[in-house]
Amino acid sequence: MSLPDDLLDEDAGPVSSATGRPLTKRGEATRARLLEAAETVFAEQGYHEASIVKITERAGIGLGTFYLYFDSKRTIFEALVVDLNRRVRHSMSEAMAGASSRLEAERAGFAGFFRFTAAHPALYRVVREAEFVSPDVLRLHYTRIVEGYEQGLRAAQHAGDVDPGLDPAVAAWALMGMGELIGMRFLLWERDDAGGSPGELDPVVFRAMTRFIDNALAPRVGGAREGGQA
Amino acid sequence: MSLPDDLLDEDAGPVSSATGRPLTKRGEATRARLLEAAETVFAEQGYHEASIVKITERAGIGLGTFYLYFDSKRTIFEALVVDLNRRVRHSMSEAMAGASSRLEAERAGFAGFFRFTAAHPALYRVVREAEFVSPDVLRLHYTRIVEGYEQGLRAAQHAGDVDPGLDPAVAAWALMGMGELIGMRFLLWERDDAGGSPGELDPVVFRAMTRFIDNALAPRVGGAREGGQA
Repeated sequence: MSLPDDLLDEDAGPVSSATGRPLTKRGEATRARLLEAAETVFAEQGYHEASIVKITERAGIGLGTFYLYFDSKRTIFEALVVDLNRRVRHSMSEAMAGASSRLEAERAGFAGFFRFTAAHPALYRVVREAEFVSPDVLRLHYTRIVEGYEQGLRAAQHAGDVDPGLDPAVAAWALMGMGELIGMRFLLWERDDAGGSPGELDPVVFRAMTRFIDNALAPRVGGAREGGQA
Repeated sequence: MSLPDDLLDEDAGPVSSATGRPLTKRGEATRARLLEAAETVFAEQGYHEASIVKITERAGIGLGTFYLYFDSKRTIFEALVVDLNRRVRHSMSEAMAGASSRLEAERAGFAGFFRFTAAHPALYRVVREAEFVSPDVLRLHYTRIVEGYEQGLRAAQHAGDVDPGLDPAVAAWALMGMGELIGMRFLLWERDDAGGSPGELDPVVFRAMTRFIDNALAPRVGGAREGGQA
């Protein structure tokens, strides 16, 4: 990983990527405005067409000020992926709080993911472009989401809620992939076809996905399927 | 969909995208050489850096000849996605031939997918860039793979091999997403970390994925889980 430390430290408050110094409250607000503008510009125009000038113009912030926060187009792009990642995980964990079982938590987590995706369609486009712009930040995005999942699955296996024969890491990547393509097909494409209205995931699709997940995770019952084959 | 017809007609032999006329055997070979060169150039350099000149140079084919087959960089990019898509589906269906049950076919199909991905890592990069270059061809890629899946799942439900409570379309997208991210994480990333050696999916990961899929698809057993909740 060759990302700057301030992108990687989860607990540290926001700092200037340009100077490495912590931000004031007002500085945090300016940085957030730049990231919000970057989200729109990168999603609408793609990385190559986007420019620092377009971002600062949309944010209503002077070009000189930009460089107090980020030192390049690539730096703000990477910071945007990290920021979207933090927020999508927050949306997921908030939705999962208070769930009484792992399967219920799973459902709630996906609901949180789809809610965030509907509000921030940039997530998909920006993450896909990260493949080319900054592969490290792409890995960071997926890995952080999967780590949370994996821990949850492991705990649920100990509690007897999830098939002990599953590998929590592989299952976590499988669930992540499922959510990604179902969100793409049934949320973003439907939305594009409807002319870009905000939209939400069709509850029928959500229930169908839930059955698939319940099947995949629930401990096996009945002698024939009992026991680990993995 | 705004793609040219010759990209969409599965049964027609290859034709020139530039003239719409069918190709001779020699013409087919030249077109295949251009696509092979395009696969390398697009995967290594990305769409923006790639150029028709770089593709023809790598193919050892004159620039004038290129225009007998494709009329732009975008056209050959779209044709490449369609070609990779046709070949990955072929690799999957070939692997599935002769399987004695749906779950066995599922396993074999994934093995075919991972085998193709290991040999053609360009698949992922090119498909991800299609999001920006040609969203129609991105949809085409996913939709064609999923359609085959969905039909297979539907047939297996009728035969009693797959949980009748699952929605075959949603399950097909779920399986596709799983395969995509597991291939990314456990095949392509491992490969990159190992310095780009061809590699194959770790059999332990493959078995773990198989257990997840078996759980998800198998008809439920035992009273508590019997019956459709979807």
